[in-house]
Amino acid sequence: MADPDVERAKEAVAGLAGVSVHTDTEAALGAPGVAAVLIASPGPAHEEALLAAFARGLPVLCEKPMVPDSGGALRIVEAEARLGRRLTQIGFMRRHDAEYRRLKALLDGGSLGRPLMLHCTHRNVSSPPGFTSAMLVNSSVSHEIDAARWLLGQELTAVTVLRPTPSSGAPAGLLDPQFVLFETDRGALVDVEVFVNCGFGYQVRCEAVCERGSARIGAEHTLVVTTGGAAREEVAQDYLVRFAAAYDREVQAWVDATRRGEVTGASAWDGYAASAVAEAGVRALEHGGRVAVALAPRPDLYATRAEVSR
Amino acid sequence: MADPDVERAKEAVAGLAGVSVHTDTEAALGAPGVAAVLIASPGPAHEEALLAAFARGLPVLCEKPMVPDSGGALRIVEAEARLGRRLTQIGFMRRHDAEYRRLKALLDGGSLGRPLMLHCTHRNVSSPPGFTSAMLVNSSVSHEIDAARWLLGQELTAVTVLRPTPSSGAPAGLLDPQFVLFETDRGALVDVEVFVNCGFGYQVRCEAVCERGSARIGAEHTLVVTTGGAAREEVAQDYLVRFAAAYDREVQAWVDATRRGEVTGASAWDGYAASAVAEAGVRALEHGGRVAVALAPRPDLYATRAEVSR
Amino acid sequence: MADPDVERAKEAVAGLAGVSVHTDTEAALGAPGVAAVLIASPGPAHEEALLAAFARGLPVLCEKPMVPDSGGALRIVEAEARLGRRLTQIGFMRRHDAEYRRLKALLDGGSLGRPLMLHCTHRNVSSPPGFTSAMLVNSSVSHEIDAARWLLGQELTAVTVLRPTPSSGAPAGLLDPQFVLFETDRGALVDVEVFVNCGFGYQVRCEAVCERGSARIGAEHTLVVTTGGAAREEVAQDYLVRFAAAYDREVQAWVDATRRGEVTGASAWDGYAASAVAEAGVRALEHGGRVAVALAPRPDLYATRAEVSR
Amino acid sequence: MADPDVERAKEAVAGLAGVSVHTDTEAALGAPGVAAVLIASPGPAHEEALLAAFARGLPVLCEKPMVPDSGGALRIVEAEARLGRRLTQIGFMRRHDAEYRRLKALLDGGSLGRPLMLHCTHRNVSSPPGFTSAMLVNSSVSHEIDAARWLLGQELTAVTVLRPTPSSGAPAGLLDPQFVLFETDRGALVDVEVFVNCGFGYQVRCEAVCERGSARIGAEHTLVVTTGGAAREEVAQDYLVRFAAAYDREVQAWVDATRRGEVTGASAWDGYAASAVAEAGVRALEHGGRVAVALAPRPDLYATRAEVSR
Repeated sequence: MADPDVERAKEAVAGLAGVSVHTDTEAALGAPGVAAVLIASPGPAHEEALLAAFARGLPVLCEKPMVPDSGGALRIVEAEARLGRRLTQIGFMRRHDAEYRRLKALLDGGSLGRPLMLHCTHRNVSSPPGFTSAMLVNSSVSHEIDAARWLLGQELTAVTVLRPTPSSGAPAGLLDPQFVLFETDRGALVDVEVFVNCGFGYQVRCEAVCERGSARIGAEHTLVVTTGGAAREEVAQDYLVRFAAAYDREVQAWVDATRRGEVTGASAWDGYAASAVAEAGVRALEHGGRVAVALAPRPDLYATRAEVSR
Repeated sequence: MADPDVERAKEAVAGLAGVSVHTDTEAALGAPGVAAVLIASPGPAHEEALLAAFARGLPVLCEKPMVPDSGGALRIVEAEARLGRRLTQIGFMRRHDAEYRRLKALLDGGSLGRPLMLHCTHRNVSSPPGFTSAMLVNSSVSHEIDAARWLLGQELTAVTVLRPTPSSGAPAGLLDPQFVLFETDRGALVDVEVFVNCGFGYQVRCEAVCERGSARIGAEHTLVVTTGGAAREEVAQDYLVRFAAAYDREVQAWVDATRRGEVTGASAWDGYAASAVAEAGVRALEHGGRVAVALAPRPDLYATRAEVSR
Repeated sequence: MADPDVERAKEAVAGLAGVSVHTDTEAALGAPGVAAVLIASPGPAHEEALLAAFARGLPVLCEKPMVPDSGGALRIVEAEARLGRRLTQIGFMRRHDAEYRRLKALLDGGSLGRPLMLHCTHRNVSSPPGFTSAMLVNSSVSHEIDAARWLLGQELTAVTVLRPTPSSGAPAGLLDPQFVLFETDRGALVDVEVFVNCGFGYQVRCEAVCERGSARIGAEHTLVVTTGGAAREEVAQDYLVRFAAAYDREVQAWVDATRRGEVTGASAWDGYAASAVAEAGVRALEHGGRVAVALAPRPDLYATRAEVSR
Repeated sequence: MADPDVERAKEAVAGLAGVSVHTDTEAALGAPGVAAVLIASPGPAHEEALLAAFARGLPVLCEKPMVPDSGGALRIVEAEARLGRRLTQIGFMRRHDAEYRRLKALLDGGSLGRPLMLHCTHRNVSSPPGFTSAMLVNSSVSHEIDAARWLLGQELTAVTVLRPTPSSGAPAGLLDPQFVLFETDRGALVDVEVFVNCGFGYQVRCEAVCERGSARIGAEHTLVVTTGGAAREEVAQDYLVRFAAAYDREVQAWVDATRRGEVTGASAWDGYAASAVAEAGVRALEHGGRVAVALAPRPDLYATRAEVSR
């Protein structure tokens, strides 16, 4: 394990056999018995760690964002393309959520016809200290960016951000909520309400409106309590409650694929596309109006839609 | 209009043209222009009023219970059978409720196969003063008695009443809630939770479990408010909210049928059967165990199941 | 009654006492006993009929759109303002729907804080012959235009229309669905999915997202049938099913208010504002981008927000 | 591992280090490194295996039924009581289900007042070959028997079984569905619809009706698809879908407790009580009427309600 904070790292691995602790990525990757790499450091540290793993041919599970700026993300794509084989899985955990997977299977099955619109809601009870207006787009909405690309199997080509008067429940100066609109390369529309200081719950919903039907996920119903003139359902307060199983499956899918010598899940191209769209989104937030997304040509390694569609 | 309380009656009809007020039923029925009779007096007064209407050949809409005791109810059935034509519609308003009608149509359509069980819930916020343990059966559950007979097109043949420890929210001495079980002449089962001091809402639900599917009504969803960690739906506090439209349709159906010279809705036989089953229910409540329902032979006037089924 | 088709009109009023049939508005309004006017003719005929009613000082219930073009609508506003008293109620029936009224009461009550966004869905199974792309905005969305103004008590100040690739289920050439965005004079956002050939149901939903909670209406739950591995709820196919009671209440509210010598419901100003916003919406649809709404100054007769807020 | 079918057992453990396969329980328990025992053999083999584990002082996770006949189950209780410490956890997995645990916490919290009734539904798509009418009670309903004792913290004191006309979807001769009623030592009522050939889904629901409110679980809402005039939700077809996580937690809770030198979950007393109640239920099914449950005195080892309540 590599962590600049050696003491915390030692505490985390206490009792696990065969684990050594390092402050340096290179030293950690060179330790005996290292067969794969999980990168969970802050985003700006990802590029170096990914390139180090590539140099040793090690499979990597990298937390999102792959690399925050699209320039760095493109360098990763190009480096992996030069290797000629995929080593990278990006940690977009919604692809591993049971509800999202059912929605994906339904859309891919084609019974509802072509998807026309996705209506998305992304609400948090409150934002952590230091959360900026840009982070609503490039951190919160980045989940919807990947989910939309994956669900639709389409690239996002333009983004518009609307800024209603901020909620008095948001910290001063934070543009919260925002309403983000994406257009796709096949004419679909994706809208996202992002509201990270809504105060009342963690709610992630998605409705796909198609030519012959609509489908929606995210209406959790568990315990319904009726008392005092009202039926009441608890709403999750935290993403860990909603997505705990998805995180587990994400890591398990990576471990399983790695053992088979394969790579699954979101690719480095997906990580790059998410960064490029998020960057365009931040520009749209700051300057108003519609901002087109310009993606570099897709290397042959990611040529098929399979990476997007799976 | 006939009412022992003349002042109240006069107030009620103030401003309506062509309405005269009487304290005496006979006088009221004999007033010029009376073409039909609506009986909304307390149950014990119904028998006399019904017979008076029969004597004049006037169609009647009679509030439930038709006649509280089954002996009196049978006299009405026999009197109408002697007339040789139906004049009576009993005011079981659930037969006119949109949800119940959809359930009825579904069951009659046969797509779900034979009904095996009905699970019913009947809850009131609180009971009025003077409400007795027997009234939970012969007043509250009488709605389910008629609804079950009508939905299933079957007669109820036995009843068992279970008495859990009463709620501390019920008036002292009132056996509330009760759990009432009916068996039918074709082997179906009907269970009813009746809880008239539940404190939290007016809730009427019915789930029909059939050979190839189940169907349920009564889960009203209107305004959902999410705040403070919970999604909250108001629950109706009053039967008028839930069944207002059914009452309107009941009276309208009677007026329309009367104009066409027809009688529709629940018949005197339905009124009699409800009284007989309720009487057996009260015996089951008082003596414990299962009590069989003994119905008189059904007169030819009510020979088909049409009256039950429609 | 005035109708250019005398035969149809005579059929409609057959059996109603004291009703005469005319082909000419003036003649109809001048008939003895006319105390109020209900205008249900096509939109282009409204202006003349409204001015004729004003000339006689008769209260009017006018179907929406009050006058299709905002110029004509403004002439009505000015004419009524010159009269110095309100005679006009516009037939926006959602203001009379039980669910909308509960949502309005909740928002006005203030417990959820300031409304930030309204997310609206407006779907029809199919559009009638001759329905144009512009009519999605100025006929279908006009309901949301009025509902949003009324629910929020705010004017709409700008509109943007997004046009996803049309559904293959829509008639050739029809831009269906559309996604319409409104901004308000106090910084709220209103988005409307309008999809008039969705094929699967008539669905009208509204979610209000506020500073301290959200509230939504339009999730009708009635009969739930579980069979063959799925729980299934019928979805209404027609606006008459969803809004039948609202239409009744609208007319009743008008009759009651007229009897009291009052005017209630949506005003001529509301009718004008709806036309002006719809016109801007059609321009936004045709030319792309954001179009500002320019309203004439509000006459003193409509000075308070009461007309909007009621 | 002990299994009479050595080949299958060898296949099951292939690739797991330090696992030896035996046909004989004694030999397996005596193998080096055995620290705990998981019994997943058919019920009749449990008694011998439990006693063998007791003889070696090994903690045991025993699948339900602990011992099918209450006589044998009581021998286990007495043997463990003689040991003077708990070694046994019974595999009632619902105690580990997230929804049941929330319901339990709510009832224990007391905000809804005393529980008066539990309404339970237990439906399977179809029963396996050889399933008998008695097994509806002693295999299927045994889950509700334990869940009711645990949720209420009360013993079940009497049972009545009602037998509607069997569904034509059930194998010939099988009394399916059944309606089972339990009374408790503090006057609560528990009713269970058990229907193991319902054909349409695996549905496990529970509604607790209390003095000041009701609470229900089991209304799974995940993907809602609206198409062709109906909103449709898939219903799970299999208990593994519904309770997969509960099974995992059950085993994990046992492993964790065992590592801490503790025993958690359902006790041998719970296993005995379940067998005794199920036996009374089968008598009630076969002979009709109400059958009282006679439990042996509870040994001090299980003296507190903690085992029931936790």
